[in-house]
Amino acid sequence: MRTQVLIIGGGPSGLLLSQLLAKDGIESIILERQTRDHVLGRIRAGVLEQGMVELMHEAGVGDRLDREGFTHDGTILSFDNDQVHIDFARHAGKPVTIYGQTEVTRDLYQARDASGGTTLFKVEGVELHGLDSDAPYVTFRHDGADMRIDCDYIAGCDGFHGVSRKSIPDTVRREYEKVYPFGWLGILSETPPVNDELIYASSTRGFALCSMRNAKLSRYYIQCDLSDKPESWSDTAFWDELRRRIPEHAADTLVTGPAIEKSIAPLRSFVSEPMRWGRLFLCGDAAHIVPPTGAKGLNSAASDVFYLHRGLIQHYNEGDSVGLDTYSEKALARVWKVERFSWWMTSLLHRFPEHSGFDLRMQQAEISYLRESEAAQAALAQNYVGLPY
Amino acid sequence: MRTQVLIIGGGPSGLLLSQLLAKDGIESIILERQTRDHVLGRIRAGVLEQGMVELMHEAGVGDRLDREGFTHDGTILSFDNDQVHIDFARHAGKPVTIYGQTEVTRDLYQARDASGGTTLFKVEGVELHGLDSDAPYVTFRHDGADMRIDCDYIAGCDGFHGVSRKSIPDTVRREYEKVYPFGWLGILSETPPVNDELIYASSTRGFALCSMRNAKLSRYYIQCDLSDKPESWSDTAFWDELRRRIPEHAADTLVTGPAIEKSIAPLRSFVSEPMRWGRLFLCGDAAHIVPPTGAKGLNSAASDVFYLHRGLIQHYNEGDSVGLDTYSEKALARVWKVERFSWWMTSLLHRFPEHSGFDLRMQQAEISYLRESEAAQAALAQNYVGLPY
Repeated sequence: MRTQVLIIGGGPSGLLLSQLLAKDGIESIILERQTRDHVLGRIRAGVLEQGMVELMHEAGVGDRLDREGFTHDGTILSFDNDQVHIDFARHAGKPVTIYGQTEVTRDLYQARDASGGTTLFKVEGVELHGLDSDAPYVTFRHDGADMRIDCDYIAGCDGFHGVSRKSIPDTVRREYEKVYPFGWLGILSETPPVNDELIYASSTRGFALCSMRNAKLSRYYIQCDLSDKPESWSDTAFWDELRRRIPEHAADTLVTGPAIEKSIAPLRSFVSEPMRWGRLFLCGDAAHIVPPTGAKGLNSAASDVFYLHRGLIQHYNEGDSVGLDTYSEKALARVWKVERFSWWMTSLLHRFPEHSGFDLRMQQAEISYLRESEAAQAALAQNYVGLPY
Repeated sequence: MRTQVLIIGGGPSGLLLSQLLAKDGIESIILERQTRDHVLGRIRAGVLEQGMVELMHEAGVGDRLDREGFTHDGTILSFDNDQVHIDFARHAGKPVTIYGQTEVTRDLYQARDASGGTTLFKVEGVELHGLDSDAPYVTFRHDGADMRIDCDYIAGCDGFHGVSRKSIPDTVRREYEKVYPFGWLGILSETPPVNDELIYASSTRGFALCSMRNAKLSRYYIQCDLSDKPESWSDTAFWDELRRRIPEHAADTLVTGPAIEKSIAPLRSFVSEPMRWGRLFLCGDAAHIVPPTGAKGLNSAASDVFYLHRGLIQHYNEGDSVGLDTYSEKALARVWKVERFSWWMTSLLHRFPEHSGFDLRMQQAEISYLRESEAAQAALAQNYVGLPY
């Protein structure tokens, strides 16, 4: 078998890239290690930057997003009862859109079905070959058979644990990492969200986030110990702890209900450089991870897809390789700024076991400063809605 | 002896307060542990916020400042050769003024001489009494005699090592501190400054600052180990190291000469709460210390003096104690924001021994972001020129 762009990973990055390429008549095949249902079962982010929304439209999958997604013109940061409203419309001139990553993935699979693109699920033993040659190929097992696909380029969209990044030699790869000393315990609940906009709540008891998927589906998180287990947190214990961390007006109006999903995620900052090696291009989690504070994971993957798509189009349609040659540099320049924002917002809002009284006061002073400074609010808003591609 | 306001410490805070009070006919006596020459021999900061300049005028000591000080409409931040110009005029609508703390102190002493105010030098064994009563008094030795001064209020302007803060009971005092793992090696040199504006230089070799007192007197600093000794740094070694840390255009045009002063200062963030206890009010370094990055030490003392002066005037002239009663709260609200800015600027620009590769990238990303973001530049500029009183 042969294709132009072989995409490793059938999550939203790989799917979005394939659909954008298909619009320009560039062939791709997607290899996915899991089943489609497994991919669609993952609960992930739900805040889309305007740039990603536009990319979804460009890929022809914006209709349901327009109908069912809803826009937020701001967000709330709180430190106990001290609140700051960050006005996106005023400071950044654009909103964010609330639409679950699961829904993004579902829309992209439907579009892929409609366009007849090949996606192979449950592939095993994927190996990348000839990345530094003109004739890269990938071998794997599928349905009990050994297979090989030759291609022009490989897009590594297979996440943090995928094979793509590890196919770049150790001598070339530079990795940067920060592991945070806490996790997020999250629940999904069929209850109306406590607030129209997200509430990022810092409190003396730790961080909490009031989020949502739609008007009837809420997503809440609380900072927890890394040693905690989801099953040791009853629904009641979760709701009680959440109430203690959010502003009183929210605690008083919180509607609770059974958790239909409950899980703990660790928080990590991670970047691997370069993002291109020979014929391999990394996108999204395969190259970089952000802690979820600030909702940048999926959006940062989308900006990689944007740069890679533009580079491939320029190559195939105009015979100009400059976009591909500068992919790593351009993608990383934005990635590092997004990493900085996510690290800053995480550092600002969480309780760190190693923090001194002085460190805690620095957090409080920053919240107080944010409340008073238009410039600081503007900087936060502009990062939150998404830096330009 | 008796006075209305007894001021402990004859540095710029105490002197400024005494002159402001004198304008309104409120009596004060200043007690200073050192000689006047010793106080005037201290080399300190040289960047005045507009608020402090206005306070100097209000105290009747703005003439020489107007003649000899010069204003800066911006500053430069560099990370190796990557530079950002922060435009104070554009983002904050006001400049800072370059005028040495030594000159401020000299002007204030001349004004005090002219107004005939009492200042006792070389006082020893100062003890504060009756702070929680209506009749506070201070005892000390002066010229071989045991003395006592009764007063209405005591202003503790006697710096970090002074007796005032320590006179607040341990059970009342809460102290917050961060000690940085490096120092600043500074030299004063009779050479023209390398640049019209200050250059705050972060480099892979550590921080450096190009500063000045006037057109013929330069003040340069480099980050150094806390174990370094000034005498182990030759002038040549200093200039060579400075050149390696500042942008090329500056290194190429740097004029060097003999150091007329060379010293190492540690960097510390410190705040003591509350700033008022009974009849005692703390001002400046007696209550809080900032690392010198951002030039906030003297300016932060001036804002305390502003609040305390307003409170005392309100009390003596209008019989209203609300300004005194809210002094600690108001002063601390601004102090913590200034502490945050100084800590942030220090953290952004120095090399920390404990920093990982990720931490270094966060610094670089923040500089890159600053270069591109008007909002981030505005926030920096507004803090640098001074938050409103």
